[in-house]
Amino acid sequence: MARRFYKRRPEASGQAFEDIIDSTNLQYKNGEVALIHKRPTPIKALKTQGNRVLSGVFEKKSTVDYDGIYRGKALYFEAKNTQSETSFPLANIEAHQLEHFEAAEKHGALCFVLIRFEKKGTIFYAPFSFIQKCRKRAKEGGRKSIAYNEFLEHCPEVPVTLRANIDYLLFVDREIEGETA
Amino acid sequence: MARRFYKRRPEASGQAFEDIIDSTNLQYKNGEVALIHKRPTPIKALKTQGNRVLSGVFEKKSTVDYDGIYRGKALYFEAKNTQSETSFPLANIEAHQLEHFEAAEKHGALCFVLIRFEKKGTIFYAPFSFIQKCRKRAKEGGRKSIAYNEFLEHCPEVPVTLRANIDYLLFVDREIEGETA
Repeated sequence: MARRFYKRRPEASGQAFEDIIDSTNLQYKNGEVALIHKRPTPIKALKTQGNRVLSGVFEKKSTVDYDGIYRGKALYFEAKNTQSETSFPLANIEAHQLEHFEAAEKHGALCFVLIRFEKKGTIFYAPFSFIQKCRKRAKEGGRKSIAYNEFLEHCPEVPVTLRANIDYLLFVDREIEGETA
Repeated sequence: MARRFYKRRPEASGQAFEDIIDSTNLQYKNGEVALIHKRPTPIKALKTQGNRVLSGVFEKKSTVDYDGIYRGKALYFEAKNTQSETSFPLANIEAHQLEHFEAAEKHGALCFVLIRFEKKGTIFYAPFSFIQKCRKRAKEGGRKSIAYNEFLEHCPEVPVTLRANIDYLLFVDREIEGETA
């Protein structure tokens, strides 16, 4: 039973996924492809000393984890890591994130979710429109998650390319070109 | 000499300026005009308990204070409050902020600085291009600040309108329309 000591905690895996995205964003920045940042977790500092925070509170988030600019367009996305091998629970995307995506799309931003099935070793690019379709189905009494097979059918897998560790902008290109076609 | 006890500290004034901008951004959001947010100050939480931060450190900022989306375009801006009645010191805009503006403009974002001369009661909309011109002049041995009169001559004053407390998007409109004209 020693094995479990080597097993990474889900939070650690989520962190590892974020690290891959951060390194991708740095590749995009250095290659002058795009300018994309992780939004800091909002913490209200109550007591500080120099650059140290002695006391603070986590504040309510109002947006999503990543934002940036690419080909003149604003983009927002959320990165989700799941341990499941069969489905992604819709509850993993919070209400404030959905609200932000809805408002941002209305103003012309590109919105999507990167979903990693860690045990499968796959990362999908899920446009916000796809997430919304699945949420609508759930609201109408359908399943409360998105099956792995549905991702395979409807969402592209994000590949490693020469320019980036997870080159998700390939699919943003397709959306931009689809819009203008 | 009791008067000084009533005098607001510069930081408090900066906070007050941020509050006006936050309320403006809320008006824009509620009116479905634009979606603009203050970026949280990046704090790395080292020790937490529930939603409380028991220990943390301020991290280096990589971007500017405000970002958002308007008419399909990404925008970034910085808000600066000054106590001076005669000029704005260029050193008030940090190197990492200038770098961010440069990169963001390259990718198609609209970048500007809102500068409030608190004692004059005026707020100027200064396009990043104007700030850069003044910085270039400083580098070449010219003055290290921008005179109040230069703002009067080159930058519009941000007015209160029915839709917003400080309706800076009026000038973003002009820039967008200038681009497409």
